[in-house]
Amino acid sequence: MHILIIGAAGMLGRKLTEALVRDRQIGGQAISALTLADVVTPQRPGGFAGEVTLRALDIGRAGSAATLIAARPDLIFHLAAIVSGEAEEDFDKGYRINLDGTRWLFEAIRAAGQGYRPRVVYASSIAVFGAPFPERIDDSFHLTPRTSYGTQKAIGELLLNDFSRRGILDGIGLRLPTICIRPGAPNKAASGFFSNILREPLVGRIGVLPVEDSVRHWHASPRAAVGFLRHAATLDSAVLGHRRCLTMPGLSATVAEQIAALERVAGPDAVALIRRIHDPQIAEMVAGWAQEFAAERALSLGFVAETSFDEIIRVHIEDELGGRLPARA
Amino acid sequence: MHILIIGAAGMLGRKLTEALVRDRQIGGQAISALTLADVVTPQRPGGFAGEVTLRALDIGRAGSAATLIAARPDLIFHLAAIVSGEAEEDFDKGYRINLDGTRWLFEAIRAAGQGYRPRVVYASSIAVFGAPFPERIDDSFHLTPRTSYGTQKAIGELLLNDFSRRGILDGIGLRLPTICIRPGAPNKAASGFFSNILREPLVGRIGVLPVEDSVRHWHASPRAAVGFLRHAATLDSAVLGHRRCLTMPGLSATVAEQIAALERVAGPDAVALIRRIHDPQIAEMVAGWAQEFAAERALSLGFVAETSFDEIIRVHIEDELGGRLPARA
Repeated sequence: MHILIIGAAGMLGRKLTEALVRDRQIGGQAISALTLADVVTPQRPGGFAGEVTLRALDIGRAGSAATLIAARPDLIFHLAAIVSGEAEEDFDKGYRINLDGTRWLFEAIRAAGQGYRPRVVYASSIAVFGAPFPERIDDSFHLTPRTSYGTQKAIGELLLNDFSRRGILDGIGLRLPTICIRPGAPNKAASGFFSNILREPLVGRIGVLPVEDSVRHWHASPRAAVGFLRHAATLDSAVLGHRRCLTMPGLSATVAEQIAALERVAGPDAVALIRRIHDPQIAEMVAGWAQEFAAERALSLGFVAETSFDEIIRVHIEDELGGRLPARA
Repeated sequence: MHILIIGAAGMLGRKLTEALVRDRQIGGQAISALTLADVVTPQRPGGFAGEVTLRALDIGRAGSAATLIAARPDLIFHLAAIVSGEAEEDFDKGYRINLDGTRWLFEAIRAAGQGYRPRVVYASSIAVFGAPFPERIDDSFHLTPRTSYGTQKAIGELLLNDFSRRGILDGIGLRLPTICIRPGAPNKAASGFFSNILREPLVGRIGVLPVEDSVRHWHASPRAAVGFLRHAATLDSAVLGHRRCLTMPGLSATVAEQIAALERVAGPDAVALIRRIHDPQIAEMVAGWAQEFAAERALSLGFVAETSFDEIIRVHIEDELGGRLPARA
C-alpha cells in the first residue's frame, strides 16, 4: 500500500508518519511506500523499509496536486491547511490553500481516472461550528463557521461528500477537537492557552491563562487525533451513507477541570505556575466556540478519545516527556 | 438606486424585473437604473423610465463579474445557476457557473473596494438538504445535499456568510421552495411534474404524474418567490447575525392535496386529465427530497408564502391565464 500524507511536516503529520512507520501496516495491508508532502520538505522517517518520497510544494498552485497523484497512492491523508489565525489575517492565502488546494487535490484524483478511487481522509475541524449553540451539539447541527478557516473547512466537507457520491474518491472527513496538549513552544493560536497552561507548568515554566476558569471546550490528545486518522483510513465507508464527515469524540472540560487534573498529576507547585492575565479579545473569541458534542456517529463507528484530563496529561508525559516529569529544581 | 439582476432572463428573473418596473421603487428608494444580465441577452422591460443596461455574459469566466460591478450597483440579485439536472449531467459546467461564478462575483465586489458594500440577495434552494430527514426540518438542521447543484448552492451560502462577516458585502441567502405552478412548457426537471399535473389540466391538456399520490413536498408560487426576493432586498440584515441564509416559508402538501385543490378550482374534468405513469427513477429521487420545513426564522422576519394549494392555483390563473380558465371545448 502506498500512502500519501499532505501536510506531513505539521505536528499531526509527523506523529501520523511515526505511527505508520512503527506499525508497518494499516488494516492488515503492508505499507510499501510513503509519500510525504508539505510546503517545506518533511523529515525522512527513520526505520522504514519501504520507499519514501519527500516533496516540498504549494498545494494552492494549479498542477501541484497532479504531481502527487501521478503515482496513484492508495490512501491519502489531507492534513495541509492554513490555520485559523493566519486564514483570518490573509484572506487570499486561506482561500487559496484551504479551498483551492483541496479542490485541486480532488480534481487531480478525478483527472487520474481509469478506476482510480483512493480513500481520502480529510482533516476538518470543529471550527466549522460557531455560536449560538445548543448545550450539546448533535450530529445533525448545521455548520455555522465564524471564521474564514471554518468556512473553508466546511466547503472542503461539502466537496468531499459530492466527489465521494460521484464515485471519484472514497472520502471520510474528521472534525478534529482542539488538540491538547499540543507539543512545542507556545504559539499565537487563540486556542493555544488550553495547552500552554498544562504543558509549560509540567516542565516548571509559567503558563498564561487569558480566560475565566469556567470556560468549557472540546479536547482530544495528539495521540487520539492520530488514532482517528488511522481508524478512518480503513473504516468501511459504506456505513457512512452520503454523510461522510464526522464530529470526532473528545472530552468536554472546563479550564478549572484542566487545572484540577494538573494538580492531581503534577501537584500544587505546577498549578502555582499558571498566571491569570485576562485577554478580553481571546475571551470573546472563545465565547463563540463549541463546548460539547454528542459525537454519537463517530463513537458508534469505533472512534475513541480520552475520557479524563488526567489521561490527556499522562499521554503528554508518555509521548513528549519520556514517561516522567522532569525533576524539580 | 441601481439594481443588478444576474440571471435576469430566467423565469424568476423576468418576473422580478416586471415587479420592480411596476413598483418603480424598493424600500422607499426610487429605482433609477436596472442592469439585466444573463447568458443570453435579457428582454428590455417596457414602461421603465430609468436607465436599462442589458448584458449577455458567462459568469463562469474570470473577469465577467468585474464588468457588472464596475458601475457599483447598490443592490444585486444573484439568481443565475445551472439547474439541478444539468449540474448533475455536466460536472464541470455546474461547478464553473454555480461555484466559480458566485465566488468571482463576490471577489469582484471585494476588489471594487473603497467602501463598496452592496446588498446581495442570493437564490439558494432547498436542494441544499438531502435525506434522511426529521419529519419537519428546523432552521438548525445541517446542509446535506445529495446533488452537485445542492452542494454548489451550499458552498455559495458559506461564501455569502463569510464575505458578509468580513464586511465585503451585505448578503442574504434564500433557500427557495420548489416553485409551483411553474409557467411554460413541461421541462425535464425531476420536480417538473408537481407543476405539470396542475398547469396542463388547467388548460385542457394531459399532465403526467410519475409518483404516488402520497408524495409530500414543499412548494411556493412564482409570485411568492418574487415576494421573497423583494423582501430580502431591504430587510435589516443586522437581525440575521452571522447566519444570513434562510429557509423560505412554503406549503407542505401531498400530490393528493394538489389534486383535490385542482378539483375544487377547475372541476373533475381537469382532474381526469392527469395520467398516472409511474417512473421509478423519479420516484426514487423524490423520496430523498424534503417534505416540510419549520421556516420559523423567515416567518418571523416577514417572509410570506401561500397557505393552500387552492391559493397557489388561483395565483397561476391570475398571473398566467389572465384571471380565468379557458372555456372548455
